Amino acid sequence: MRLATLRTPDGTAAARLDGDTYTIIEGCADLSELLAEPDWRELAEAAAGATVPAADAELETLLPAPSKVICVGLNYATHIKEMGRELPEYPTLFAKFADSLTGPYDDVVAPAEDEMLDWECELGMVIGADAYRVAEADAAAHIAGYTVVDDVSMRGYQRRTVEWLQGKIWQSSTPVGPCLVTADEFDPVDAAITTRVNGEVMQEANTGDLVFTPARLVEYLSTMITLRAGDLVLTGTPGGVGLARDPQVFLRAGDVVEVEIAGLGRLETHVVAPQA
Amino acid sequence: MRLATLRTPDGTAAARLDGDTYTIIEGCADLSELLAEPDWRELAEAAAGATVPAADAELETLLPAPSKVICVGLNYATHIKEMGRELPEYPTLFAKFADSLTGPYDDVVAPAEDEMLDWECELGMVIGADAYRVAEADAAAHIAGYTVVDDVSMRGYQRRTVEWLQGKIWQSSTPVGPCLVTADEFDPVDAAITTRVNGEVMQEANTGDLVFTPARLVEYLSTMITLRAGDLVLTGTPGGVGLARDPQVFLRAGDVVEVEIAGLGRLETHVVAPQA
Repeated sequence: MRLATLRTPDGTAAARLDGDTYTIIEGCADLSELLAEPDWRELAEAAAGATVPAADAELETLLPAPSKVICVGLNYATHIKEMGRELPEYPTLFAKFADSLTGPYDDVVAPAEDEMLDWECELGMVIGADAYRVAEADAAAHIAGYTVVDDVSMRGYQRRTVEWLQGKIWQSSTPVGPCLVTADEFDPVDAAITTRVNGEVMQEANTGDLVFTPARLVEYLSTMITLRAGDLVLTGTPGGVGLARDPQVFLRAGDVVEVEIAGLGRLETHVVAPQA
Repeated sequence: MRLATLRTPDGTAAARLDGDTYTIIEGCADLSELLAEPDWRELAEAAAGATVPAADAELETLLPAPSKVICVGLNYATHIKEMGRELPEYPTLFAKFADSLTGPYDDVVAPAEDEMLDWECELGMVIGADAYRVAEADAAAHIAGYTVVDDVSMRGYQRRTVEWLQGKIWQSSTPVGPCLVTADEFDPVDAAITTRVNGEVMQEANTGDLVFTPARLVEYLSTMITLRAGDLVLTGTPGGVGLARDPQVFLRAGDVVEVEIAGLGRLETHVVAPQA
């Protein structure tokens, strides 16, 4: 099943995508509200509301109000080894906020304050049922599905201090979507993941290279804190970011970034200048 | 004005404290809901609902559902200098989540996974009106008031990687409260702040020593992201944490931690073992 959050003339709405048609899931303003319902799967399957042709649909960020967005740093083995590092014993974790997220086709502003705007293609895991101290072997029951995320990063701010947060939370800077593909229809450890900037491939990897898999992350994270239905976990990015290139490449107004995961879909982001 | 979130037989409720009596602010389940109302100040002042004697009140964490909790690292000048460091040009920032917060008198679990449980007394700033790109000189209009926070930290997890987040977000580990003192009644840059562990003073400072004041933080943070009414900003801790002592001191089940800020109130936390 494929689910999304649509922008409609009456506000946002949760919707199910069948072929090239969205069906509104009535009573839920977005996927955050839908996933808060314990029987969200049945509600979504049974939905028979108004329909919207996919070609006419405008997509909101997938999860407008997650209680937490947890991000994993270094997590692609090939990239870690090519940087001459040992595989990590523990995942490196940082956060984003709901306000940092934006729609899968929305513009992203290149802020005047930081000229080092960079891309990071990531597999996003969406929690489907609260998880606290859940073992890896039992994680599947707590994963709703997967989506595509571009962890757009302001590298200047990220590197102002040892903690990366201030480079990761800029307003409406992180495209998420276009849809949630439920876990029964997607294998998270065997999917091609790609970033193209102005059509040129910049990152190309397979999620099979993840050191900490989604199921392993459910166990690790839920040892500390309750993962809530609708929470979003970003699983890290492979090699090829602009900061690590020689010469370095950063995004400017007019650039177009596409992030795609086979089986999940594609984000398309136009970088724009700040409004005067 | 002093505001709090109470636990009542019918769930939680926002309340105003006058002397030794709480008055329920009807229609708001907690301070997060109240602060989401643009006229929260007038609603709170006008409240004339049921009353609860302070001696009988049970306090919930002050803000059960902030959209973001942003924390500042090194921020007390005296402590930074005594560590032989230069004063920082930029604040070091990390995050917590709503699930990490707990009530001002609640027990905190010393987890089996990390034996390095530590205290950090902090002045908490509560946002009272959305702020995006607000100058320091205009910050006051966006600050609801102040509260007391103990940024309890799992130092083992905090030091597993370069990013501190995983030592900072444990479930229900961060006491916040007991109340919000509105900004008109509290000077955030001249208040004594103290931590006592089993009655012994471990941290003792004045918020006048803050490198980045609350107003300065509103400007810095709101350059990146919208601060929402009800968001919580932790302004950092002075010297005297257990990790930095010689010998190091960590909290064990049975310990009692008190964090107090003159004019705001006192947290009292009993450290307990995990439930079997």
